[in-house]
Amino acid sequence: MRVNKTLQELADYLGGRVIGDPTVSIGGLGTLDTATEGQITFLANIKYAPKVKSTRATAVIIPPNADHFDRNALIVASPYLAFAKLLALYSAKPRKARGIMDGAFVDTGAVIGEEASVYPGTFIAEGVRIGDRVTLHPNVTLYEGVVVGDDVTLHAGVSVREGCHIGNRVTIHNGTVIGGDGFGYAPDGHSWAKIPQIGNVVIEDDVEIGANATVDRAALETTRIGRGTKIDNLVQVAHNCQIGEDCIIVAQTGIAGSVKLGRHVTLGGQAAIVDHAVIGDNAMISGQSGVFGNVAAGEILSGTPAIPHQTRLKAAAVFPHLPEMRKTLARMGARLSKVEEQLEPLQITPLAV
Amino acid sequence: MRVNKTLQELADYLGGRVIGDPTVSIGGLGTLDTATEGQITFLANIKYAPKVKSTRATAVIIPPNADHFDRNALIVASPYLAFAKLLALYSAKPRKARGIMDGAFVDTGAVIGEEASVYPGTFIAEGVRIGDRVTLHPNVTLYEGVVVGDDVTLHAGVSVREGCHIGNRVTIHNGTVIGGDGFGYAPDGHSWAKIPQIGNVVIEDDVEIGANATVDRAALETTRIGRGTKIDNLVQVAHNCQIGEDCIIVAQTGIAGSVKLGRHVTLGGQAAIVDHAVIGDNAMISGQSGVFGNVAAGEILSGTPAIPHQTRLKAAAVFPHLPEMRKTLARMGARLSKVEEQLEPLQITPLAV
Amino acid sequence: MRVNKTLQELADYLGGRVIGDPTVSIGGLGTLDTATEGQITFLANIKYAPKVKSTRATAVIIPPNADHFDRNALIVASPYLAFAKLLALYSAKPRKARGIMDGAFVDTGAVIGEEASVYPGTFIAEGVRIGDRVTLHPNVTLYEGVVVGDDVTLHAGVSVREGCHIGNRVTIHNGTVIGGDGFGYAPDGHSWAKIPQIGNVVIEDDVEIGANATVDRAALETTRIGRGTKIDNLVQVAHNCQIGEDCIIVAQTGIAGSVKLGRHVTLGGQAAIVDHAVIGDNAMISGQSGVFGNVAAGEILSGTPAIPHQTRLKAAAVFPHLPEMRKTLARMGARLSKVEEQLEPLQITPLAV
Repeated sequence: MRVNKTLQELADYLGGRVIGDPTVSIGGLGTLDTATEGQITFLANIKYAPKVKSTRATAVIIPPNADHFDRNALIVASPYLAFAKLLALYSAKPRKARGIMDGAFVDTGAVIGEEASVYPGTFIAEGVRIGDRVTLHPNVTLYEGVVVGDDVTLHAGVSVREGCHIGNRVTIHNGTVIGGDGFGYAPDGHSWAKIPQIGNVVIEDDVEIGANATVDRAALETTRIGRGTKIDNLVQVAHNCQIGEDCIIVAQTGIAGSVKLGRHVTLGGQAAIVDHAVIGDNAMISGQSGVFGNVAAGEILSGTPAIPHQTRLKAAAVFPHLPEMRKTLARMGARLSKVEEQLEPLQITPLAV
Repeated sequence: MRVNKTLQELADYLGGRVIGDPTVSIGGLGTLDTATEGQITFLANIKYAPKVKSTRATAVIIPPNADHFDRNALIVASPYLAFAKLLALYSAKPRKARGIMDGAFVDTGAVIGEEASVYPGTFIAEGVRIGDRVTLHPNVTLYEGVVVGDDVTLHAGVSVREGCHIGNRVTIHNGTVIGGDGFGYAPDGHSWAKIPQIGNVVIEDDVEIGANATVDRAALETTRIGRGTKIDNLVQVAHNCQIGEDCIIVAQTGIAGSVKLGRHVTLGGQAAIVDHAVIGDNAMISGQSGVFGNVAAGEILSGTPAIPHQTRLKAAAVFPHLPEMRKTLARMGARLSKVEEQLEPLQITPLAV
Repeated sequence: MRVNKTLQELADYLGGRVIGDPTVSIGGLGTLDTATEGQITFLANIKYAPKVKSTRATAVIIPPNADHFDRNALIVASPYLAFAKLLALYSAKPRKARGIMDGAFVDTGAVIGEEASVYPGTFIAEGVRIGDRVTLHPNVTLYEGVVVGDDVTLHAGVSVREGCHIGNRVTIHNGTVIGGDGFGYAPDGHSWAKIPQIGNVVIEDDVEIGANATVDRAALETTRIGRGTKIDNLVQVAHNCQIGEDCIIVAQTGIAGSVKLGRHVTLGGQAAIVDHAVIGDNAMISGQSGVFGNVAAGEILSGTPAIPHQTRLKAAAVFPHLPEMRKTLARMGARLSKVEEQLEPLQITPLAV
């Protein structure tokens, strides 16, 4: 689809201010290096400011304080956000409702909304309710009693287990499993008795989950992923977790059972959170960190066990010197002993004076 | 399904002893806080003992030493285990055999036992043999020569590769792959020659495996998961591993090739075991630990490289102080040098006396 | 399939030299312990050299410097590589083209080459182009515009997303996702605006990827996996990465966005590479390491943050002694203070002399 907008139209769309010619036509976007005539580009990092002068783009999105070098410019608070929004605008493809295609299996007791696309190999069990404009790619499986909102996209191979709820405008990438059993067993002599996992998962609106991730159903109640939270590939969310709104959870992170995340928490890749931990709003946990307890709002932690990030950076810088420190310590002990030996007779002398 | 049992019937089922009225009818269960009349609850942690008095439940499961506050009580050694068993009892749904449903693909040379449920999109190759009361959810793929026991549940999207064996009462959650090729290559100049992986995987009885996990086939012989072992989501078990019975392997743990785990070993989440390591019975490896060698029976290790857990906790507590320790060391070196300088002339003095 | 070769034929195939009878017939292979008459075995590790004398095998593959104990022997530079090649030779099964089977869904606009096997439940969207001798196991999903080369095997449950390219002789194991959206969001107040991921993934020739791995599509351009690279299970490759040729990436490793790997890089299991890092040719990163910056060619790093492997081994050996070091430091501080106190009056004495 070909989109053409004037610079003024883009400014209105983004809430920005035009410098130069507001009537120039913009048909796409590119980076400072790759954009061509008829396109718009953006300055996300001030260190590339000189490229604003040389880019071949017809217009440049810049932050308020940047030099526009007499180019057509669009001034916004966050050029990076503006870029994201324009990329969405220019790359959008019109959605085509394909209906329920041959080879899809839909239980007669399931309810599917308007303008659905249900691809071959997808299975929809009894009691499933699905909203409008939903796309279910091939080989998706929705178990009994699943509820799906409007404008949802589930990619090929996604499973949503019995009784789980998916909100509106949710996208889940390929192979992700929502509602597998939580990992709960009680010791029974040397063996393990399964604790039935009879709760469910609720994914709130505007959540996106990457590929091959897993979100387990609660033992008794609900595992919840808060509105607007974004989860990357291969992440594990265990049973009973309560994930707040607008969190960012990077790939391969593992969140153990009954963890509570506040709003706008960031977990770096391969991080791990111990069960029952409570993580405050806006906390940031660095990649590969292991969090073994609660974290206050706004804290920035790293390492295993996780400690304040700056503290850990300084300690980690000393770590390679441990062998020499140990040797120094031993040598100083010997020197000190020698000094003490020398002082022993002297010690008497002054007293004798 | 509605289940009603008298307290005495539950006592008989669990092997416990009744205090109070054995004839009261119990129709479900809940926590100390949530249970209502007609339900039974349990005291798993002695710190909540006062709630036994105030709960609205009709009866309480307590350990031998706990106060029953003149309530109807059921005394068992492990109330938590009793809870697990009663939850299973009250939440059980009768299994319905659906047969081989339209849209399932079963090779004419495959053998399927009694009372199967084979959902659409599931593929069963030639030479597959399947026991009784097996549920194969949608989009399961069983390659040639797979053998599956009785009372097995394979969730949507599970793959079992050629020649692998699944025991009785095994449950495998969605997307898990049994028998993918082990990761074996021989250097061939700067490239890599694949070592064909012609062994298989054997999953013994009563194993449960979570979602999106991977268990690789052996190079030549068998990768084995021992009876009763429980494996969480996103775990990797590499080729040739021999996992013992009743092990607990938490999410995202990686076990490298040819590792041997004893019985009742616990591996915390995101742990890693180096190839060829031998881990003794009842060993416990903390989350995120990296084990780079053998572990004796009963050892409790943590950290990377893993060391005894208590040792590591103490060392980790000192770690943040490394920068100040290094500075102290430098300052003490300077002080010591000064002391030594002062002592040099003095050293002569006493000799001169 | 039964293969029989003379020892001379095997020598010609492997480029080796025969000692003893070149006409003996070899029908299979085994280890030094398990091989039987009519089979060939190999000495990969010189410490097992005495077994060359006692093995029941008809011939032994040995390196140039090893004793052949008057056995029939085949001398090659790398017996392990020879083993890999012979195992492939003896275990090879002739591929049978099954065509497009009932229950496979192929868009009328897709192009499929000669001798394909397309299993039930596999979905091939419009605009897909597939080469010759390709095997698509059940429940594979190829989105619009995917291009697949010759001699490719995609195992059950693999997804290849819109516009991605798979080279020749590529094998991808079950459940792996090629081309899921990269994880990119711009802050929009307290929420996150999605940055559309409109690039693709290119998998070059002779790549093998394990089960349940994920390779994300680029934001704008191409995520590339170089020729001959081997990727293990559950690995995450984020958007925009450029992975060089002949790399080895072990299970559960995570590579963040825009990372550039050179040729023949080895990443141990559960390693993590920070975004935008550049890793030089032949670098080796130990398992569970966290690389937070660039790595020069040939470097061997380990730990988090990663440092030279030998340095880290030595530091890690001292780590458990931290508590005693801290105590020693405190005690030495006290001793030193005492010494200084003693010296204070003495200090005056010599001056007074």
